[in-house]
Amino acid sequence: MDRPIQHELSAPARRALIDALGESRVHTDPETIELYAADQGPRRCPPIAVVFPSDHEQTAALVRVANEHRLPLVARGAGSGNVGGALPVPGSVVASFECMRRVLEFAPEERVMVVEAGVTTSEIDALARSRGLFYPPDPGSAPYCRIGGNLAMNAAGPRAVKYGGTRDYVLGLRAVAGDGRTLVTGGRVTKNVTGYDLTRLLIGSEGTLALVTEATLKLVPAPPRVGTLRACYESMPQAADAVARVMNQPAVPCALEFMDPSAIAAIQQAGAAGELPRGTRALLMVEADGDPADVERALARLRTALEGPGLLELREAADPAEVADLWRARRSLSHAVKKIAPLKINEDVVVPVPRLAQFVAVIEALADEYRLPIVSFGHAGNGNLHVNLMVHPDDADEMRRAHEALERLFETVLDMKGTLSGEHGIGYEKRNFVPLEIPPDTLAMMRALKHVFDPNGILNPGKKFPEA
Amino acid sequence: MDRPIQHELSAPARRALIDALGESRVHTDPETIELYAADQGPRRCPPIAVVFPSDHEQTAALVRVANEHRLPLVARGAGSGNVGGALPVPGSVVASFECMRRVLEFAPEERVMVVEAGVTTSEIDALARSRGLFYPPDPGSAPYCRIGGNLAMNAAGPRAVKYGGTRDYVLGLRAVAGDGRTLVTGGRVTKNVTGYDLTRLLIGSEGTLALVTEATLKLVPAPPRVGTLRACYESMPQAADAVARVMNQPAVPCALEFMDPSAIAAIQQAGAAGELPRGTRALLMVEADGDPADVERALARLRTALEGPGLLELREAADPAEVADLWRARRSLSHAVKKIAPLKINEDVVVPVPRLAQFVAVIEALADEYRLPIVSFGHAGNGNLHVNLMVHPDDADEMRRAHEALERLFETVLDMKGTLSGEHGIGYEKRNFVPLEIPPDTLAMMRALKHVFDPNGILNPGKKFPEA
Repeated sequence: MDRPIQHELSAPARRALIDALGESRVHTDPETIELYAADQGPRRCPPIAVVFPSDHEQTAALVRVANEHRLPLVARGAGSGNVGGALPVPGSVVASFECMRRVLEFAPEERVMVVEAGVTTSEIDALARSRGLFYPPDPGSAPYCRIGGNLAMNAAGPRAVKYGGTRDYVLGLRAVAGDGRTLVTGGRVTKNVTGYDLTRLLIGSEGTLALVTEATLKLVPAPPRVGTLRACYESMPQAADAVARVMNQPAVPCALEFMDPSAIAAIQQAGAAGELPRGTRALLMVEADGDPADVERALARLRTALEGPGLLELREAADPAEVADLWRARRSLSHAVKKIAPLKINEDVVVPVPRLAQFVAVIEALADEYRLPIVSFGHAGNGNLHVNLMVHPDDADEMRRAHEALERLFETVLDMKGTLSGEHGIGYEKRNFVPLEIPPDTLAMMRALKHVFDPNGILNPGKKFPEA
Repeated sequence: MDRPIQHELSAPARRALIDALGESRVHTDPETIELYAADQGPRRCPPIAVVFPSDHEQTAALVRVANEHRLPLVARGAGSGNVGGALPVPGSVVASFECMRRVLEFAPEERVMVVEAGVTTSEIDALARSRGLFYPPDPGSAPYCRIGGNLAMNAAGPRAVKYGGTRDYVLGLRAVAGDGRTLVTGGRVTKNVTGYDLTRLLIGSEGTLALVTEATLKLVPAPPRVGTLRACYESMPQAADAVARVMNQPAVPCALEFMDPSAIAAIQQAGAAGELPRGTRALLMVEADGDPADVERALARLRTALEGPGLLELREAADPAEVADLWRARRSLSHAVKKIAPLKINEDVVVPVPRLAQFVAVIEALADEYRLPIVSFGHAGNGNLHVNLMVHPDDADEMRRAHEALERLFETVLDMKGTLSGEHGIGYEKRNFVPLEIPPDTLAMMRALKHVFDPNGILNPGKKFPEA
């Protein structure tokens, strides 16, 4: 961006936006500005306008206007991200894809669905299931998050341990690059090596390279049954060892979720954990899916793997209601832990699964050393833990301790050859840590790619990487 | 490239290469030049030198020398590609990765293997299987092709219908960009959204962006049993309809191979097809893998799907020897069909599976209309057919007819929303067809990316896209 930050939308810019999108799609009233000033991350920054493109062509027109008037564009799905990926930057226009929610095509016999960026993840899955198929990526926010946001972050969820993430279910994209050109990537077949893989370059690029308007998704057959085990352990490292055993035998679970004592307390408060054995300090939820007979055999194998030191109880969920309760509680954890302290510093680091026991021991030690409540839960089968440092933002000493603990946490993760983010993304919040993981030459290459897609730097500036 | 083509290695360039790699790794003798003048594509072009880097550091040094002396570098694995991806360009140096065949790490408990670019695909799989794991991508050339070549092309094979291709089994890469900088992409965990996905941008880029030196591969549990069905049909469209039925029910096969009458004749000549029912004009090989009980249930479902109009016979392979014979014959097809005519114009197009029946009917019509033997076989479960136009290169009229038929074939594929290549890549042979599939702005973006990685254009120039 080579112009000074604009504190309000200039008259010519407003006119150009209205010409491109129509008056009803350009909002600058204080209520709308306020509503779109933040995502689920900790920061706020009011945009100078919020716009709602109706389709690909309007999105292309929007990007042209943004280039002409040097307006930073911050793409937004449902604003359910944790890392400020959709946080407006000063002087920016939020481009909300909420109005682009058409399913353009559903071809069940081809296992393909073409959707606009604003369709919710659950809607895609529900439509797929109406024809015996399903869409595996299942972020906790699936009922309201938009596929465009999922694509921006390469979102995943519990099922990733068996099925992978968003990236694994996209055959092609339609998008508008930062320079205003329309990109058509991939196609609608499951094997395709024509051209470079721009599809996967755009997925996870957090709205910094292009605005995705349409996606062609791959669906898979829906498993007819899911079985759920609950295993209680005396300690977190013992539960983590059980995770490593599960992931080192052939029956791949379709969920392998970990909860530490604070997370357990939170789901007990929600009334979902039922009676737990005395001394439970770690809980695993383990699922297998497939035909009923497959599930039975897989559960038997998973039971064997879950048995070991520290196991206090291992049982199958009694009925669908109990499973539903467990999952509702698990999915509510992200919000529930906010009761512990006003600010949740929420990391979604990943370590190799065999290092998980050592990693949870480090988390416990950091919580002690820095006198901080740390709540850990998440997708243990991928080594992907949500580590939440609970703090009072007005307590300067606590904030200082939290930041020191965070740096130690990241050092540990990277020493273990893990990564800073498994599914939440980098956004604004983690950008300054990226150079700890990505070497300078590789980071320079990424910045150079950004410049090719977005020469004027209008797309989500200052996100994904630290400022150069 | 901004210098004239060099017809032999200059003395300063030779000295620089020897300084970088050592004398024993720089070859310019006529025998070596001759050996490396072609891959399995139809063309030859002698390089001016062939070099054999020993490791990542030597590869980085090589790229620096190539930039200083403006030497085009053509990366080569085993030279088993079909499209001239490893075809030397005039004045080029072939960089063979044959000497980089160390397995740097095998962590079975983590399901991870780190290998150098010259390790063969079969070696990776065999080592994984020694610990109950396997490496799914299975190109026909697996016994001798190198993982570096697989990465360049995003190679796949029969198992892709269930397991996906090379791209789906790579956690991270180490590579040298065209500008000589070392890139470290991804990592060794299964979820990672830090930075842009350079891993998948490099996979399938055919040595035009960077030279991959090391790859961190993801392994999966090896299925204990594989069951094999053979189904014979009266016509190709009827067999293709059966493929669509198979792919529209929940039991995903781990191979679904199609053969047309000429392919059947070739495998019969190899003595592998046994007795076939009279009137067989299409054959499917269908496999399911997993635990023995899973396989039984899957085979029952697959049988149901395979039944339908035109089915002449459906049976399970009698014993492992018959399965081995069938696969040996299937894998030899690519070579065996060369007996029909001296030149095989070998396409590996993909169409959506529900369009396959219509597509094979078009192929039959083109063979009639243009009076050409066309042999079709391949990975029908992905809609990925190997369509081979068998021609005499000295017969100008036949060559003209072949090229007309080819254009009609590609038009049909693209009308059906398919792609020009599913797994072989574009290389030199198909580059001029790429603009039929990729729109101009998207192609321009790909070229701009190439320029960022390789500003002097030294890496495999003139491949993957038509010259600008």
